[in-house]
Amino acid sequence: MSNNFQELAVSLAAIAKGFHGRGWLLGTSGNLSAVVQREPLRLAMSPSGIDKGELTPDQLLSIDENARIVSDHAGKPSDESLLHIRIVKQRGAGAVLHTHSIWNTIFSDLYASEGGVKIEGYEMLKGLEGVRTHEHSEWLPIIDNSQDMPALAELVDQTLKENPAAHGFLLRRHGLYSWGDTLAQAKRHIEILEFLLETMGRTSLIRRTM
Amino acid sequence: MSNNFQELAVSLAAIAKGFHGRGWLLGTSGNLSAVVQREPLRLAMSPSGIDKGELTPDQLLSIDENARIVSDHAGKPSDESLLHIRIVKQRGAGAVLHTHSIWNTIFSDLYASEGGVKIEGYEMLKGLEGVRTHEHSEWLPIIDNSQDMPALAELVDQTLKENPAAHGFLLRRHGLYSWGDTLAQAKRHIEILEFLLETMGRTSLIRRTM
Amino acid sequence: MSNNFQELAVSLAAIAKGFHGRGWLLGTSGNLSAVVQREPLRLAMSPSGIDKGELTPDQLLSIDENARIVSDHAGKPSDESLLHIRIVKQRGAGAVLHTHSIWNTIFSDLYASEGGVKIEGYEMLKGLEGVRTHEHSEWLPIIDNSQDMPALAELVDQTLKENPAAHGFLLRRHGLYSWGDTLAQAKRHIEILEFLLETMGRTSLIRRTM
Amino acid sequence: MSNNFQELAVSLAAIAKGFHGRGWLLGTSGNLSAVVQREPLRLAMSPSGIDKGELTPDQLLSIDENARIVSDHAGKPSDESLLHIRIVKQRGAGAVLHTHSIWNTIFSDLYASEGGVKIEGYEMLKGLEGVRTHEHSEWLPIIDNSQDMPALAELVDQTLKENPAAHGFLLRRHGLYSWGDTLAQAKRHIEILEFLLETMGRTSLIRRTM
Repeated sequence: MSNNFQELAVSLAAIAKGFHGRGWLLGTSGNLSAVVQREPLRLAMSPSGIDKGELTPDQLLSIDENARIVSDHAGKPSDESLLHIRIVKQRGAGAVLHTHSIWNTIFSDLYASEGGVKIEGYEMLKGLEGVRTHEHSEWLPIIDNSQDMPALAELVDQTLKENPAAHGFLLRRHGLYSWGDTLAQAKRHIEILEFLLETMGRTSLIRRTM
Repeated sequence: MSNNFQELAVSLAAIAKGFHGRGWLLGTSGNLSAVVQREPLRLAMSPSGIDKGELTPDQLLSIDENARIVSDHAGKPSDESLLHIRIVKQRGAGAVLHTHSIWNTIFSDLYASEGGVKIEGYEMLKGLEGVRTHEHSEWLPIIDNSQDMPALAELVDQTLKENPAAHGFLLRRHGLYSWGDTLAQAKRHIEILEFLLETMGRTSLIRRTM
Repeated sequence: MSNNFQELAVSLAAIAKGFHGRGWLLGTSGNLSAVVQREPLRLAMSPSGIDKGELTPDQLLSIDENARIVSDHAGKPSDESLLHIRIVKQRGAGAVLHTHSIWNTIFSDLYASEGGVKIEGYEMLKGLEGVRTHEHSEWLPIIDNSQDMPALAELVDQTLKENPAAHGFLLRRHGLYSWGDTLAQAKRHIEILEFLLETMGRTSLIRRTM
Repeated sequence: MSNNFQELAVSLAAIAKGFHGRGWLLGTSGNLSAVVQREPLRLAMSPSGIDKGELTPDQLLSIDENARIVSDHAGKPSDESLLHIRIVKQRGAGAVLHTHSIWNTIFSDLYASEGGVKIEGYEMLKGLEGVRTHEHSEWLPIIDNSQDMPALAELVDQTLKENPAAHGFLLRRHGLYSWGDTLAQAKRHIEILEFLLETMGRTSLIRRTM
């Protein structure tokens, strides 16, 4: 394993532990990856079925662009590795994070018929890469959930192409995907989108009572 | 004590601390067990009246199939040990966890007249053992609360027989029981069911405001 | 300082840190005490104006039955020491804890006109000392807030006499007091009452949406 | 660097970590400062674009009254340094903290048309410097958000002059600013204001259901 892999694995495990603590990766849900090298593509990928609060760096798997394990690890990469790979290729992302939070699940469900969630006018949006002002409008597309991973990867690919400015997307009644040039940027994007969804949800609740 | 007991005791204490931190075992509520051996049955069982945030491995008790202490510990096993034993026998479970969370208490109360809670269509359901798709429908039966433990154990037994596919059940205004082949699986099931109940509750709240 | 004082001070600091983490003692609010000896009365008391998340055992003050410092500490005991002393004398309590949580503040306000909050039918009630069944009805009296500590201490005294079975009381728009024979029991009572108030509040919210 | 700077940097990093844990500084949002010396003015200032959960003392920057870095650090001070400097000068503050919490964002939005939020009648208000009774009325002004920092600094200056008793202010759909004579006092003020906004918001929600 390269030094790069080891460093990324340590960071991925730390982020997994933190997000699990916030309730965003309960029940072995969610997955995390980071690009170790581009040519040929190698990703450090979280294994399937592991408690994210107890994920250790040595459990991270090295996979290729077909989601096959290239190291001699015994684990099984996450079922959703194909989605990570597609995002990495489409966006040139250096890391992809996928959370199952209560608030992203709620929004992915209640806004499904509208095809996405519009987030605008919040200072917090400035933390999304390339955004310079709170007067930004972010469209978070919602994709129907499916167990057919190759088909879902195609839908993700299409959605990314149709929404070139999007910093993330929701899978219906499933969760949130976001990414970044670096792992730190991907973590920042997840925190921002989770924050904004919860803020919008609670604002909607309280607005009616005032 | 066998090595197996020691390892399970360490894991049970760690889970107790984590769940207490999440507010699922406040005020010495809730209890945890894991099967040490089957023939004759020996369970590592949490003691009664102990702060779960400070439970230490040496406080775990070894009990037999009649909930009698078989080690020379001074403690008293949880009053609900009989329920754990019944679940272990009926389901062949390797571990049983019982939480008192705010959201499981709410659902156990508001859905009591319907006899249970139906959870369906969430990706998170795939984390329940044997479930392969989000298009699963999980029925979480609700049992009336009682202080008559042998009678309650009979009701639990009957409920488990009537709902062979259930991964857990609620006691009304009391809490959630779930289990697993292993302790890790039981923890996963609790996290998933707690997540889904809170998600459904908050979705119900917000749906009216949009 | 007696060994007893040192041990209690360590436990008080640990409880303060934990409750501050849960948001029950923000902004230097709340206070904690434990009886070191009865004749003459000596309490280990939290100092005024200290961040409870950073309270250290050596900051605890030893006070007498008139809330005067008897050790050579430089600190100032909490303004509400007189209330602690009154509870200790009236109830024979070994420890008194006072929290400012969001949910106890809400209930102390919304139920003020009814003079108290009735909590009944929850399994969690069994964790209150002397309660044997969930079919218990707990009355949590609400006392109007005041900055006149001697007068407030009299009101507390009267309320305790009128409600001999109460395990705690609320000060309006201020917070919750509970106590116990031991510090562990007082902590248990606070956790239970906080849990039940939040559960009742959230149940009330969600009931209308189902 | 002076000893004073080092001590303040350690405290600022600890507060950042704690507030990030509470979800008040997600996604590299928010910023923190403390006065190292008055003549000439030197502030220890959090850098731009850093994860506040991982901020280390050596990342704090020393800036002058024009928000220029005076140490040989490589970082970039927060864009909002001008606001911190204005508050320090106007109020004689020793520390300024700025959080992006869900509840302060909600209030900054829903009360914008009223120009501020009135908070009154809570015991918790006594924790604000100079407040002696819960019968205090605190006015938290709301200022429209802007990316023009010099203009926003002027608006902040004017708002502080018009509200000489205010302990903080909100930027619309952006966040909360508070300050104190010391860093500990500033932290106390933030905790109190965050607590009170959340309490008022949840009270408003639940009042309609009772």
